[in-house]
Amino acid sequence: MSTTTARVFNFSAGPAVLPLSVLEQIQQDLVSLPGVGSSVLEISHRSKDFDDILDDAQSRLRRLMGIPNDYEVLFLQGGAALQNVMIPANLLSGADQTADYIVTGAWGKKSSGEVKHYGKLNVAWDGADSNYDRVPAPGELSLTGATEGAAYVHLTANETIQGVQFHELPDCGDVPIVVDHSSDIMCRPVDVSKYGLFYACAQKNAGVAGVTVVVVRKDLLERSGPLPSYLSYAIHADKGSRFNTPATFAIYVTGLVCKWLEEEVGGLAAMEKQNIAKSKMIYDVVDGSGGFYVPHAAEKDRSIMNVVFRLPTPEQDADFVVKAARAGLTTLKGHRSVGGIRASLYNAMPVEGVEALAAFMQDYAAKS
Amino acid sequence: MSTTTARVFNFSAGPAVLPLSVLEQIQQDLVSLPGVGSSVLEISHRSKDFDDILDDAQSRLRRLMGIPNDYEVLFLQGGAALQNVMIPANLLSGADQTADYIVTGAWGKKSSGEVKHYGKLNVAWDGADSNYDRVPAPGELSLTGATEGAAYVHLTANETIQGVQFHELPDCGDVPIVVDHSSDIMCRPVDVSKYGLFYACAQKNAGVAGVTVVVVRKDLLERSGPLPSYLSYAIHADKGSRFNTPATFAIYVTGLVCKWLEEEVGGLAAMEKQNIAKSKMIYDVVDGSGGFYVPHAAEKDRSIMNVVFRLPTPEQDADFVVKAARAGLTTLKGHRSVGGIRASLYNAMPVEGVEALAAFMQDYAAKS
Repeated sequence: MSTTTARVFNFSAGPAVLPLSVLEQIQQDLVSLPGVGSSVLEISHRSKDFDDILDDAQSRLRRLMGIPNDYEVLFLQGGAALQNVMIPANLLSGADQTADYIVTGAWGKKSSGEVKHYGKLNVAWDGADSNYDRVPAPGELSLTGATEGAAYVHLTANETIQGVQFHELPDCGDVPIVVDHSSDIMCRPVDVSKYGLFYACAQKNAGVAGVTVVVVRKDLLERSGPLPSYLSYAIHADKGSRFNTPATFAIYVTGLVCKWLEEEVGGLAAMEKQNIAKSKMIYDVVDGSGGFYVPHAAEKDRSIMNVVFRLPTPEQDADFVVKAARAGLTTLKGHRSVGGIRASLYNAMPVEGVEALAAFMQDYAAKS
Repeated sequence: MSTTTARVFNFSAGPAVLPLSVLEQIQQDLVSLPGVGSSVLEISHRSKDFDDILDDAQSRLRRLMGIPNDYEVLFLQGGAALQNVMIPANLLSGADQTADYIVTGAWGKKSSGEVKHYGKLNVAWDGADSNYDRVPAPGELSLTGATEGAAYVHLTANETIQGVQFHELPDCGDVPIVVDHSSDIMCRPVDVSKYGLFYACAQKNAGVAGVTVVVVRKDLLERSGPLPSYLSYAIHADKGSRFNTPATFAIYVTGLVCKWLEEEVGGLAAMEKQNIAKSKMIYDVVDGSGGFYVPHAAEKDRSIMNVVFRLPTPEQDADFVVKAARAGLTTLKGHRSVGGIRASLYNAMPVEGVEALAAFMQDYAAKS
C-alpha cells in the first residue's frame, strides 16, 4: 500500500495545511487505535477511550493557552457561523440589551448581522470606508460602555480575507470582550484572563473543519433565559461537550495538533517567533518589490497569518496564481472582495513552503 | 509502518462500526489525495476538489434512496440535537401553530422538548407507560389534523435505546411527516416522496460524527419568518451546504459509505436482506433461549438495527458484557434507562460479527 504521495504547499485560507507528523499519526492509527481495536471514527462518545481523547485535547489546550479554571472549554459544532448566533443568544439577557461590534473585515460584518435576532446592535467602528485595511485606534471606538448597559464587545482578532490583525486587544473597561480567534488561535501567547469569551473554528490553526473551540468565563454562562438546548452554552458546559454526540474525530485531531504545538514546536512563544519570521519573509518581498506587489493592510495591522497583496493588474494576479500552482504553491487566489493574492501562513505551513513562495515571488517580479 | 492491527467486533450504538474497505480507503489517501497533493483534511471547501466530493456524496445518496428532485439534500452540523431545534424553527410559521410528535422512545421525547421555543406541542402518542416497547397502532394516534392546523407530524423511525422501529410510516393525511432516521437511514429502501423532511446524524449508518444529512421538500423551506442564519434551511439550501465551512471530512466519509452501499453491497434492497438476516440471528437466539434472554421490544416492532434484551439478573447482564468484551465483542452494555444488553447491528456490522455474537450468546446461556 502506498501511504504517502507527493504533497504541494497549500496556502488555503481554511480548511488549511496540517502538520505532516499529525497526518501521519492519523493515518497510522486510522483502521484501529492501538489498544482499542476500533478506528477513532468508530468509538462511542460515551466510552473511556473517547473520554481520554477529549480530556487530553482539553488539557493540552488549557496548558498551551494558559486558560484559567474559571473558564469552560467547549468543543461544539456549526463553526463560527453558529457562534455568531449563540453569542448574542447567550450573552444578551433581553431584547433591550446592546452588544458592541468592532467591524474590521468580512467576518466581523457577518458576526454583527445576527445580533438583531436577540437584542440591539451598536457598531462601535466599521472599517468599510478603506476596504478594511486596518484596525481602529483606541480613540476611534464608539463603545456603548458598561454603565449604559453594553452586554459585551465583539471583535475579530484576525480578518482572513483582508489580512488585518489586532496585535493587542482594545481596552473595553468592565465590558466582557468576545473574540473570534478562528484564524489565529494559538498563533502566539495571549492573556486569556482578559477575555469574556473567545471562539475558533478549528480548520485553520487548531485542526479540521467540524469542531469549534469555545472558551467562556463561567460567570457569563447564566445570562440568558431558557434557550433551545443546542444553543445554550450552559447545557454544553454541564454535559462536558457531550450534550449530544460531538465531532469525535475532529476533537481527536485538535488534540494531536495541540500535542504537536507542545512537543514539536515547543509552545506558543516559539510558534509566534516562527510565525513572525514566516510572514516577514513574504512582507519583505512585497515591500522590496518597488511597488510591483501592493500590500492590502496598513503596515502596523498586518496579519502574521494571512498575507494579502496584489499585482499591477488583475490579469497578472490570475497569471501568478496559475504559475504558482504549477510550481506546487497552491490556493493563492485572493478573495473576490479584495482581489489579488492571499497567502495563508498558518502555524502548520512549513518554513520551506514560505521560502519557496518568497523565491517564486522574486522570480515572478523579476521576469515581469 | 504498521497500518492495520487486530480489530474487535464493535456493537456500539453510535459512533459505530464502519466498513473495513472504507477505513482502508481513508487511510490510504489520508496524507495526500491522489491528484490533489493535499489531505482531504486540508482542502478548501470552496475548491473544485471539494465540490467533486460533495457532489459525489449527494448524487450517490440521491440514487441510493431515490430522492426526487423537489427535495433538497443538505449536509449540516450539530447532529440530530440541532435538528430538534431547526425543525420547529423552520416548519412552524408562528407561535400559535401546533406540531404533532409521536413519542416511541428516548430520542422522540428529546425531540419534542424543543418545540415550546417556537410553537405549540401536541403529543400524539407516548409509549412511556410500557417503557417504550412498541410503536402505536394507527387508531391510537391523537393527531391534530391538517384542518385544525398541525404544521407537521414528527416521529423517530428507530429508537436506538429501546430497539423499537417503525416498519411502515403512519398515515398522517396531508400533514407533512418529519422523520428522524438517525439510526436507520439506508437500512432499507423507503419511499422518500411520502416525507416532508427526514434527517440523520451520520455516525450510525451514514459515516462519522460531525455531519447531519437533512432531506427536505423544497416547498417547506419558506414557512418561517427570518431566522438566525445558521438555523435557516433556506439559507443552507441556497448556498449548497456551504453557507459556512461544512464538515468536509465527514461529508467525504459519507460519500465513501454510499459508494460502498452502491458498489459492494448492491443497493438498499440487498442491504435490507442482510439486515433482516443479521438481526434474525440474534432474535432467534433470544426467542430460543427458553426465557433466559428477555427481549425488550414487542415482536412486531423489533428493530433490525438495535437488538435489546436482558438476562435474568442485572449481575448476569454485567457479567455477560465483561465476558463478551474479552471475546472481542465490545460495547454491548444497554442504556441505563432500559438496562440489559444492546447489540447494534448497523449496515457495516459484518455477518461474521453477528455469528460470533450469536455463538457467544448460546454458549453463555448453556453455561448459566
